Amino acid sequence: MNNPGNNPENKTGATPPTIGVFDSGFGGLTVLRALIQRLPRARFAFLGDTARLPYGSKSRRTIARYAAESAQFLVNEQDAEFLVIACNTASALALDAIQDAVPVPVLGVIEPGAEAAWAASRAGDVLVIATDATVQSHAYAAACRARGLRALEKACPLLVPLVEEGWTAHAVTAEVIRIYLEELNAEAAAQGMKPDTLVLGCTHYPLLRPLIERAVPAGMRVIDSAEAAAEAALRHFNGRAAPAAAPSAGQDAPPEPQLRCFATDSVEKFERLGSRFLNRPVGKVELVDLGG
Amino acid sequence: MNNPGNNPENKTGATPPTIGVFDSGFGGLTVLRALIQRLPRARFAFLGDTARLPYGSKSRRTIARYAAESAQFLVNEQDAEFLVIACNTASALALDAIQDAVPVPVLGVIEPGAEAAWAASRAGDVLVIATDATVQSHAYAAACRARGLRALEKACPLLVPLVEEGWTAHAVTAEVIRIYLEELNAEAAAQGMKPDTLVLGCTHYPLLRPLIERAVPAGMRVIDSAEAAAEAALRHFNGRAAPAAAPSAGQDAPPEPQLRCFATDSVEKFERLGSRFLNRPVGKVELVDLGG
Repeated sequence: MNNPGNNPENKTGATPPTIGVFDSGFGGLTVLRALIQRLPRARFAFLGDTARLPYGSKSRRTIARYAAESAQFLVNEQDAEFLVIACNTASALALDAIQDAVPVPVLGVIEPGAEAAWAASRAGDVLVIATDATVQSHAYAAACRARGLRALEKACPLLVPLVEEGWTAHAVTAEVIRIYLEELNAEAAAQGMKPDTLVLGCTHYPLLRPLIERAVPAGMRVIDSAEAAAEAALRHFNGRAAPAAAPSAGQDAPPEPQLRCFATDSVEKFERLGSRFLNRPVGKVELVDLGG
Repeated sequence: MNNPGNNPENKTGATPPTIGVFDSGFGGLTVLRALIQRLPRARFAFLGDTARLPYGSKSRRTIARYAAESAQFLVNEQDAEFLVIACNTASALALDAIQDAVPVPVLGVIEPGAEAAWAASRAGDVLVIATDATVQSHAYAAACRARGLRALEKACPLLVPLVEEGWTAHAVTAEVIRIYLEELNAEAAAQGMKPDTLVLGCTHYPLLRPLIERAVPAGMRVIDSAEAAAEAALRHFNGRAAPAAAPSAGQDAPPEPQLRCFATDSVEKFERLGSRFLNRPVGKVELVDLGG
């Protein structure tokens, strides 16, 4: 993060902060859901760069350019004063470029995920499941190693399409998870690791958490990077003493979140699938053009 | 197709024709494989627009622009005198735009697939499985209807990731195919159809053909659009009396194909997975930049 606290107005709690949330697609809506739970009075602007997904198959330079453009839209046109990069690929490959491109604090999902794994693990051996692109970046392994953890990563490329097919409680999905985790645990054992923590390193995976919890060995903790990132954002706003984020006295139910969703293309799929990720209607998704 | 036969030299058989083959990714290598089998002495230039895939989530206008740029690269820079659009989405949404963009004949995969279904079906009722984008275009249904066939289409979004995971003979894949075909046959029965033909409307699906053949009801014919498109290309060159495509007398084994492969990004995945689709090494994939 850089430039913390650029808008002193919010330190007084007079105006709720606007938090920009960015993803290459709409999987980052699970991060937005976790943010809304913790910061129900903030305003949110979510941008899915759906015209240019998947970032995972693109070069680091291309991803950095796309992500910087998206971040600038959220800051310059939506007045976001804090950005959450709710995309593991962009967090892994473009966090520096985004921080250079905008004058507000920028939070990725990988450091909070690794931090939560560090807090959860007693053995110091951690497993990470993610998309192919995130695993190839080895960003989780590096973030874990920086905290003295050993991490073994595995790409699980079938899990995102299974979630998008809606098979989040399906026997096929349970079997695929069983196969992936069996392979991962066997590889960990072969390396002499005794893992006690599993990090969900993809924004789609929280929808599979019940199946994954059932598939892990007894006693293994499951860490959700989306939840971990939302906790880190909450600490940021608490650290700035921003009471706008906390429910006021005498108010029981959280208010309806102030939320605008934007996509660069393919609004239909975003609107159709997004509510499963956000766990509430996403409403009208607005189309924006960030250029080719 | 427009402008058939722009290069009279090939009518004499003096120079083997160059056939350009275009896909948004590398699935179209199954079409290239079928082309090489039938036209072993032609030269081939294959372009996968991997930087901008998947086309399926993009608007028709965007797809048309991308596909036209790719077609122009094959014609203007690789001297292709005949183009095969080995991509169902581009064939469905951009065939006209490609034909307008280049002065050579352009063949898609959908018309040949529908034509082969017409030739195979006695009942006149046809099933089509494809990606979500191809199904949403209803291009197969329209092409079948134009031939007096009734067609029922179903999106099978898990099949591409299962192929790319390499699970082409896996029990999970067999189960997913069983579920999809059961749903499709139930829907056909509910509509009073008696389908006897199944069209594989995605360039990845030929790799699943053995599992699909085992899963269809007895007597159902399976039509592969890749094979059908290659047959149509063969007819084109035979119609022009291009003996370059036929093995010469006294030559038993087909020669090594003259093939150059290009991609706009992500050469690694192309090289790693491509040989499964092409059924031979793809060799070095050359990176080209078609712009944003």
